[in-house]
Order: sequence, then C-alpha cells, then structure tokens
Amino acid sequence: MKKVTPFPISQGCSVSELVQKMAGTSFQARNLSRGVEIWSQMLEGEATIFFGLAGAMIPAGMRHVMVYLIQNRLIDCLVSTGANLFHDLHETLGRFHWQGDARDDDRELANSKLYRIHDVLASEEEFGKTEEFVIDFSSALEQDQAYSTREFFFLLGKALSTQGKEEGILTAAAKANLPIYCPAPGDSVFGTALAAARVKRGNHLLFDVIKDIIEMIQIDCSAPSTGVIFIGGGTPKNFIQQAELCGYIFDKKLKGHEYAIQITTDSPQWGGLSGCTFDEARSWRKIAPDAKTVIINSDATIALPIMVSALGERITKIIENRRKPSFILGRDLAIL
Amino acid sequence: MKKVTPFPISQGCSVSELVQKMAGTSFQARNLSRGVEIWSQMLEGEATIFFGLAGAMIPAGMRHVMVYLIQNRLIDCLVSTGANLFHDLHETLGRFHWQGDARDDDRELANSKLYRIHDVLASEEEFGKTEEFVIDFSSALEQDQAYSTREFFFLLGKALSTQGKEEGILTAAAKANLPIYCPAPGDSVFGTALAAARVKRGNHLLFDVIKDIIEMIQIDCSAPSTGVIFIGGGTPKNFIQQAELCGYIFDKKLKGHEYAIQITTDSPQWGGLSGCTFDEARSWRKIAPDAKTVIINSDATIALPIMVSALGERITKIIENRRKPSFILGRDLAIL
Amino acid sequence: MKKVTPFPISQGCSVSELVQKMAGTSFQARNLSRGVEIWSQMLEGEATIFFGLAGAMIPAGMRHVMVYLIQNRLIDCLVSTGANLFHDLHETLGRFHWQGDARDDDRELANSKLYRIHDVLASEEEFGKTEEFVIDFSSALEQDQAYSTREFFFLLGKALSTQGKEEGILTAAAKANLPIYCPAPGDSVFGTALAAARVKRGNHLLFDVIKDIIEMIQIDCSAPSTGVIFIGGGTPKNFIQQAELCGYIFDKKLKGHEYAIQITTDSPQWGGLSGCTFDEARSWRKIAPDAKTVIINSDATIALPIMVSALGERITKIIENRRKPSFILGRDLAIL
Amino acid sequence: MKKVTPFPISQGCSVSELVQKMAGTSFQARNLSRGVEIWSQMLEGEATIFFGLAGAMIPAGMRHVMVYLIQNRLIDCLVSTGANLFHDLHETLGRFHWQGDARDDDRELANSKLYRIHDVLASEEEFGKTEEFVIDFSSALEQDQAYSTREFFFLLGKALSTQGKEEGILTAAAKANLPIYCPAPGDSVFGTALAAARVKRGNHLLFDVIKDIIEMIQIDCSAPSTGVIFIGGGTPKNFIQQAELCGYIFDKKLKGHEYAIQITTDSPQWGGLSGCTFDEARSWRKIAPDAKTVIINSDATIALPIMVSALGERITKIIENRRKPSFILGRDLAIL
Repeated sequence: MKKVTPFPISQGCSVSELVQKMAGTSFQARNLSRGVEIWSQMLEGEATIFFGLAGAMIPAGMRHVMVYLIQNRLIDCLVSTGANLFHDLHETLGRFHWQGDARDDDRELANSKLYRIHDVLASEEEFGKTEEFVIDFSSALEQDQAYSTREFFFLLGKALSTQGKEEGILTAAAKANLPIYCPAPGDSVFGTALAAARVKRGNHLLFDVIKDIIEMIQIDCSAPSTGVIFIGGGTPKNFIQQAELCGYIFDKKLKGHEYAIQITTDSPQWGGLSGCTFDEARSWRKIAPDAKTVIINSDATIALPIMVSALGERITKIIENRRKPSFILGRDLAIL
Repeated sequence: MKKVTPFPISQGCSVSELVQKMAGTSFQARNLSRGVEIWSQMLEGEATIFFGLAGAMIPAGMRHVMVYLIQNRLIDCLVSTGANLFHDLHETLGRFHWQGDARDDDRELANSKLYRIHDVLASEEEFGKTEEFVIDFSSALEQDQAYSTREFFFLLGKALSTQGKEEGILTAAAKANLPIYCPAPGDSVFGTALAAARVKRGNHLLFDVIKDIIEMIQIDCSAPSTGVIFIGGGTPKNFIQQAELCGYIFDKKLKGHEYAIQITTDSPQWGGLSGCTFDEARSWRKIAPDAKTVIINSDATIALPIMVSALGERITKIIENRRKPSFILGRDLAIL
Repeated sequence: MKKVTPFPISQGCSVSELVQKMAGTSFQARNLSRGVEIWSQMLEGEATIFFGLAGAMIPAGMRHVMVYLIQNRLIDCLVSTGANLFHDLHETLGRFHWQGDARDDDRELANSKLYRIHDVLASEEEFGKTEEFVIDFSSALEQDQAYSTREFFFLLGKALSTQGKEEGILTAAAKANLPIYCPAPGDSVFGTALAAARVKRGNHLLFDVIKDIIEMIQIDCSAPSTGVIFIGGGTPKNFIQQAELCGYIFDKKLKGHEYAIQITTDSPQWGGLSGCTFDEARSWRKIAPDAKTVIINSDATIALPIMVSALGERITKIIENRRKPSFILGRDLAIL
Repeated sequence: MKKVTPFPISQGCSVSELVQKMAGTSFQARNLSRGVEIWSQMLEGEATIFFGLAGAMIPAGMRHVMVYLIQNRLIDCLVSTGANLFHDLHETLGRFHWQGDARDDDRELANSKLYRIHDVLASEEEFGKTEEFVIDFSSALEQDQAYSTREFFFLLGKALSTQGKEEGILTAAAKANLPIYCPAPGDSVFGTALAAARVKRGNHLLFDVIKDIIEMIQIDCSAPSTGVIFIGGGTPKNFIQQAELCGYIFDKKLKGHEYAIQITTDSPQWGGLSGCTFDEARSWRKIAPDAKTVIINSDATIALPIMVSALGERITKIIENRRKPSFILGRDLAIL
C-alpha cells in the first residue's frame, strides 16, 4: 500500500509540480493528478482521442485551452454542443463575453439587452450579429444539400480563417484537419439560424447527423486504440460512447474505449448518463474491461486548465510527434 | 407574511393532501407544492404546455406517468432525448427493464450481456432486437426523404399502434396527435439504427431537425400563452427555450414563456444551462418578466409521480376540457 | 430478476399506495420505498432506533413529523443539532418561522431584523426572546454542575410542559422519556445563551458531553438489535455511528447497526462522513456486514413526510406495541 | 465591464500565475482566483482570521498545508472537527493514512481491519493505538477539571512537541500560540477516549465548551477587523459565525465579519447552513453588509493547495509581518 503524502507547500511551484504533489493526496486532487497521468498514457499509446465538450466552456474562458489542444494534437476528434461552437465563432469574429455576477438583476439585464450565463454576460445585439453571420454563411453554401456537422463546421472554420480576427476552435480545427461533430445542431443558434434562413430566404440546407454517426464509427474502427475525455456529459458523452457499440456496422467487434477521463460536477445517484460511472459504461462494453479510467469531480474551469498546463510541460516531445493526425479524413474514412 | 405550518401526519392521507400540506412547509417540499400549483394554473390559463424530458426516465419507471400526461392532455408538446423514446419503444414491443443494484459488478454484467442504467438492467440481446425493429421500420419508410423528428416519431407511433403490445408514449402521442420532438436523434439508437440501415442496406433517410425548430416556433407563435415543464435539463430544456427567441422568424415578438417548472438535481453554480435558474432565462427573455416559475430540486422519480397524482385528483374537469389539442398540427402549422 | 413496473397514476391514491407503487420503479423513488420497508422491519424486529437530525428541519416544517415519531415511538433515541432543538423551543413558546423567498434581499432583511434560513424567515427580536428564555432556564438550574445534554434537554422539556403553548420535540420527548442527545451544544444558541449567563450573571453550568457518549454506548450495548436513521449527516450521524465502535468500554463486542437509512443530498465523492455510503461504514464495523441499508438522495422535506405518512398507515399495530420504550432510562443506564 | 480573457496555456506556468490567469475566466476558476485575492486583503488589512476546518482533510493529505498556514500565520484561530485533529495526532505519532480506492470491497476491508475514508485507508489497530495515546494523555491531566477544547488541544500539542515524530497541526499551533477550538469534541475519538478513561479508569475530565464560546467572542471583540475561511461547513462554520452575534455579552456591537471565503461542494437549495450563501449570513449580520466574500465550489483538496501555494508566492513580506499573533491569549483574553 502507498502512503498518503501530505501536499507540501513550496515557493515557485509550477503547475506540473502541483499535479505531481496532488498524486500523493486523495479525494479529487488525486483524481486530477490521475487524469493527467491517463491523458499522458493515451498520448504515448498513440490512442485516437475523442474529446466531448459540454457546458458553457467558451464564455467561461476555456477557448484558448481548446485551441491549444487542437493545435498540439492533444486530442484527435472534438464532439461539442452547438453553443460552445457558436460562442467560439462569436469571439473569433472579434466579439466578447463579459465578466458579470451570478447575482445580477436579470430583469435589469433584459432591459439592458444583456444575456447572462451564470457570471458571464453577452450582448444581445452582438449575439444577433453573429447569428446573422451564420445565416449569411449558410446561405452561401450549396443549397438542397445535406451536410454532416463535420463538413459544416469544417467549411465554417475555413471561411473564418480568412475573415476571423483571432484563432479559435473552428479555425484551428479546420487548419489541423481535426473533425468536429455536433450531435444536436438544432439545439443551438446554428439550428435557429438555419431555420431563419429557410423561412426568410427560402434556403434549404439539411444537417445529416446520420453521416456524422457513420464517420464516428469509421474513425473508431480504424483506430488501433481509443481514449475518451469528457468535459461534462450531455450529448457529446453519449455520442462518443455509442460509437463503440456500433462496430458491427462495419463488421468489426470493438472492445471498448481503453482510456477514459471525465471532468464533471454531476453524480451517479440521479441515474443519468452524464453523471454515470465508467464502470456502468463497462457493462455496456463502451469502455474496455481493463480500461484506465478516472472521473474528476470538479468544475472544468479549474481542472481543465491545470491538466493542460501540466500536460504541456510534461510531454513536449510527444506533442511534437502527435502534430500529425492519427487518421486522414477523406482517405481512411471512405464514405466521406 | 405567512407562517410555516409544520407538516401534520394523518391517517389515510392522499397524495393530493400530501401536496397541500407541503405548501405549509419550506425548502423543496414547498417548491414541489408550488409546482403543482403552477401546473394547475397553466391548465386553467389554457397555456400551450411544452414538456422537456431528459434523463433515463423510462427505465426508471416513468412511462405510464408520461402516457397519462399525454392521454389527459396535461401537456401539449413533448421534447425528449432519443433514449427515452427508444426505451418506450422497447417496452411497447413487450420487452422490459429490470430492477438491479447500482453496486452490481459491471464486468460480470457485461459477461451476462446485461446493460446497467444506475440500478436498472436491460438485456443486450433484447435491446438489439428493438434496434433491429427500428432498422426495419426506417427501411419501410419512403427513402431519400428528410423527416422532421416529429414526423418520424408520429409514423413510428402509428405503426406501433397496430403492432405494439402495450400503450406507450409514442402510441399515445400518435393517437392524441401530440407532437414529439427529439433535438438530438443522432445521439441515440435511432441514430445508430439509421446509420446501420444506410451502410448495410443502402437506405438513405435524413432527419430534418431544422424543420423541427420551425414547427416549434410556429406552435409557440400560435399560442396565446405558453408554459414549460422540464424534467432535468439537456437538449430538451434549451430546445424549448430557444424557440422563444425566434418569434422574429415569423415576425412576432414573443414575450417569454409565462409558466415554468423544472425538476432537477443540477445546480446553478456550475454555469451550465441544465442547472441554471429561470431568472437567468429572464435575462434572455426566454421566460417572461412576470412568469410564474419554480425549480424543484429533486430526483424526478419522486417528484413527478407525486405531482401528476395530485394534479389528476385536483383538476378532473380541466382535464376533460383539455382532451382536445390546443393547436391543430397540419393546419395551424402551415409548412408542415 | 424483477421487472421495472412503471408507476401507475390512479385517482385518490394514498401516500401509502404511492410508496408501494414506487417500489416498482427505480432510482431514488425505489430507494424511498425501500426506506419505508427497512423502517418497518426495524419496528417489527424490535430494534432500538437511533435517529440523527441535522439540517434546519424545524424551520422547514418538520416539527410535527418529529413529534409524531416520538409520540408513536417510531424512534427510540434522538440525536440532534442544537439548532433544531432551539427552533423547536421557539415554536413551543408560541413563536413562528415564516415563509420567505430564497431570493429575498438580505441587506434589507437585516435592516428589517429578519433572519433568513434559505426560504424561511425568523424575527431577530423573537429569537432574542427565546434566547433569553434559555438564559433564564439555565440560571434556574442547579449551578456548578455538569449536565449531560440528555439531562439538560429533558429538564427543559419538562419545564416547557407546563409553560409551552404547543407540543413539540422537547416536550413530547420528556413525556415519553425518550432521550435527546446534542453532540455540539456549544454550536447553537444553547451554547451562546450559557456563555451569556456565565459572563453576565456569573452562572456556571457545564455540558458533560462525555456522559452523553457513555449513555449512548450503554443504550447500544443493552439493545438486542439496533437501527439508525439519519436526516442529513453532520455530528448526529457520526455520534450515532461511533457508539458502535465503543462496546469495548463495557466489555461488549458490538457487531454494527443492523438497519440503516439515510436521507441526504450529499454525495460520496467529496470524501466527507455526511455523504459517505453505508458500505464505507461497514469497513469500520459501524454497520453490520449483513445490515439492511438504503440511502435516499432527496431533500428530507419531501422524503420524510412521505415515509412517516406511509409508515403510520401501514403499521398501526406495531406502533401500539412500540409505545413503551425499548429501554428504561435510569435503570438499564446504570450511571445516569 | 471587464472582458472574459480566455485562459492562456504557457510553458512553466507557476501556481501563482495559474491563479492570475484564472481571474480572467469565469465560473469556479474565477471564484478560486477571487479567493486568493480576498485572503491577501485579509492579511494586508490585518484582520484576525478564523479558519473552519471540516471534512476528512488530513487523511486527504492537507496536513502540511494546515501546518504551513499556522507557521506562517496565514490564519489566527483554527476551529476544527475532532476527526481532523485526531488524524493529525495519528500522523504526528508517526503513523499513516494509506491510498486506497473508493470501490474497495468494504466487507473485505473490515476483515483485514482496514477503515475506509472514501479512497483512503487506515489501520484499525493503529487507530486503536492512537486512541490509547489519548486515553493516557487525558489520564495524565489534572482530573475533576473542565478544560476548554483550546486548553486541551494546546496541552496535547505541547506534550506532542516532545514526543511527536513530525510537525503537525497540534504541535505547530502550540508553538505558535495559535488557539484551536473544537465545537463537538464528543463527536470524535477524543470523546470516546475520554468516555473510556472515565469508565475504565475512573477518571473524570470535562470539556468546557461554554468557555470556548466565550473566548471566541473575546477574540472577535478584540479584533479591529475579522475574516473567515471555511473548508466545508459543519460545526466550524456556524461556531465561527455565531460569535459575531454575541458581542452583546461583552457590551460590544459587532458589525459582521468583513472578509469571507468558503470552499465547499454543498449547495444553497437544501437549506442547510453548510451550503448557505454569505448573503444569507448577511441577513443575520454574521457577515458585514459590505464584506468581501466568495464561495468556491470545489473539492478543497484541489482548491486549498492551489490557494495556499499562490498565496505563499505572492505575499512573502506580509507573511513575515504576520508571524506574530494578532492577539495574545491569556492577556487580551481576560478570563482564560
């Protein structure tokens, strides 16, 4: 048995050392440290890494962390809620989110045309402009077509690369050829913008979410090993995990993801998939019997920057090697 | 000011009395009681009621409660995760979910081909058969077509009405002409089944989630007043709330939902939409400034059956009037 | 394996039927039902039942439920925070708690001399009067004495029986000879009132919390079997559980409590005793290896009134038999 | 309004920089950063700092952090659960806590005589030896005496300074003359050890918790300004806050603590004091109207080491000045 080693305070402690010290402690600090360890192992083991992003992480200031993950190929495939991608677009277009207070008066905010996201504010008018950008962008696409969300966000990322004012998730992913999937595009401004475009402009563009699923399974089937990292739960968690049950579509038997990390503030006792354990996922064979797993019960705004800062310090060489994608979209993925 | 009236224990107390007694107490019991009050007011006020269903509510035994809500028109429009609809289909086809234990050994369950959902088990093989039913059903639909999820689930409900063994959500909704929307159909077995059908059988069926959005906004715009009820958060909560921001698509200015109830185990401090307050929603104008709102912090398996049992007892007459839909699909909704 | 039986809505459903129906479902509703089952078994098995009460349950309206438990001997020994006993005293003296709103402006409340407890308000001035009552009561006790908290609250209950305006926890317990222990009397107005009495009036009264511990162990050692019920965690949970480790003081080997129920909104992942599982308690032998246990994750204001209402209906005869105490204070408890 | 500044990943980032970067983000990361800011202000403002310690923080590896806080006078007065002090004593005597797994089999652990505290293990036999140490220590104290918990733990710390093998909380506090209060000494092994000493050895030692309260109020009244820091809630939080209501005992009007930080995983909606907001405390005047406050929703094992590491780096000079106590026990505190 290993002793608990009390966390020692020292001058000039780096984040990497912080995480190492946490390995000697217990509860969620030890889990945080274990999360960095498992992520390192994923990278060393050349696993294809699926990253699920839920929660309002961009308004909360996690945009550069995500760009760093993409640029340094610390992840291979991003599955996100639509909101995070919309907020990324908003900032890429040179607009901002603002620091507010969770106790602000919401009726007054409504009068001032400020939207509140917990302790973050956004301008209703500016959000409207970003929505119009989406309407215009979608109108410029070939109509009467069904786009997988990967295609849609890739094209948007490419379009932004010339127009955008600051590197963001969509632009970085387009440059890195890193696929982004959005399982519920209709549940976001992308959906309402396309609805507006259809009614007001007579456009007719479809999202082909079935194609997304097929691609996800192909990526999964083509990977020698896979790892998953979830920020929160929601549609990204299930969307990534369900792929593992569908190898049969390509006559493959998948054995479950081999590495799994979740940062969450949810709990198993409520019975939902967002908060369920990786053990539960083992009963489904979404997660391999001997997979390395950890759940870090923490607000992601605390845990994620720490993990990525520590990871960046530790594994400079691995990152260098990883800069090439672990699979080639459009080649390995035959039906794209 | 009103006194706290301690909850009095009495013999033969009915659920309706339970809820009345809770009105005198505080904390979540008072909120539960207020939830029944607001729901009654929605019904009396002839609001169009949107109901968002997240969480594994069918495996948890909430299927008949949902059927009751539909048959008695205590709700007008259901927005659900795909999983709940799949689990409903599973039971309608005469299969079951089983009572397990959250501490069951998941590796053994995997070996026994039993899936675990917290303390519920399901047979892998039987789930496979239900998935095949979906593949066959979707193959029988006209191909190269884009279906709104409402159309898809309506057709499925109608097909089941002749084949199904027990009344469920899908069948009851089809009979009642009550629309069901699913904002993330790809994030469920419906999605993976259609993926299998496309790859294996060369079918080609699309979900048109944009059409869903447009219909939602139309229903919203055509209602003299609206109320929302959320079980958990997830895509249904946002999907229902975002409609309120999109009146402009039909040149209407919507003022926000006027009644709002959420049963949730989530909390605002994590910044996500699932756990955010209705006050936050007021800053967006998704909820009207003077809306009657309550959040009930409780597992829905406890709160929902109590609320519906109490409601059923209270408002027999209102229910009778409500049995006719508050809007006519296909007539009011011009573009359907 | 047992099927999940969906909760059926029916007219005129009693709370007892509600709980029976919940037994067919899952998640926390099933746990709630199981809690009633285990409590019934404790009563039938003639276990000595320790009840731990934390959280502001009296302001929340749980006072009559507690009185019912005491009068009908559904519990044998109460371990409580000081606050709940102070709030009980407050209401026994004819004062009230008031229904407020969790979003009330706290600076304004302070100006209006109203204390807030989530969505409950109390008058600063009236609380002051109740505190003075405690100062006077303690001044009338024999000084330079150390009282166990059981003695102190028994004497207070007796004194109130003649002065109090309404039956409460303290008065009912004194009449029923049911012991009340308070592990942290200093952490409440009882403590600050005695501090005031000492400084201002030169009184000198001590709480002998060690005597409390000894009595608890004696009750435990003298019981053929024991059960525990915890509302929340806090000092009552640990205080009751630690007794089970101390049989050695009376040369007895205790085997762990045989029945255990906790209603809590806490979770195990944070590592605290309040939220830990009964399995964890098994490693300590606080809970017997084959004990019947359940944790109900719910606000107690919802779960407790339901459980007690259902219990009262079910077990009228058992209650009749139980009205005599399971142990006699002052006889079995030699050193009292 | 201030923009949200996305957290930038950089090589060799120190913990101090981490916290500075978090100030630009939102949700709990911003709160964490604000916590360091407010703690700095307390130190600069020469506030007397009360620190409440709940939760199994010593088994979780927070012992050295606590020693650092005491030695560098980053806090002035510690209020703790008994368990944390017992676990500190255990390690000071050269024994250990061990890293386990929250999913360990608890019946097997019981057979192996290992206690589990979430993912930490402790030897039953070794805990027994530490308990015997307390029995012996208390037997060596003058009997038929009532000790405030401050006196008891001060004497224990002094005794350990000669016997202990490693600097801990009790020894460091005794050396620094920093008072430790324990509002529920009976709810811990200190209580059960004294119970054993009384029954088995005929000793008779009392804890005078009323004296503790009086001293707390004196410290509070003698401070020009006060700040509070709570790790979790429990008895320490209330014990520290209630002092602020009792200035009247010394004919002083206290205005409420002026700085307040809480690290917690609890939530306000359950109505308990552990999870309540500092706004609620304002209605009681426990917290000053214009106090600087923050609640950091995080496991303390993550937040506390980060905050203290950052603090240590920032404020070397302030710490130097602070090494002398902000009040002198036995002089300012007349009745000690």
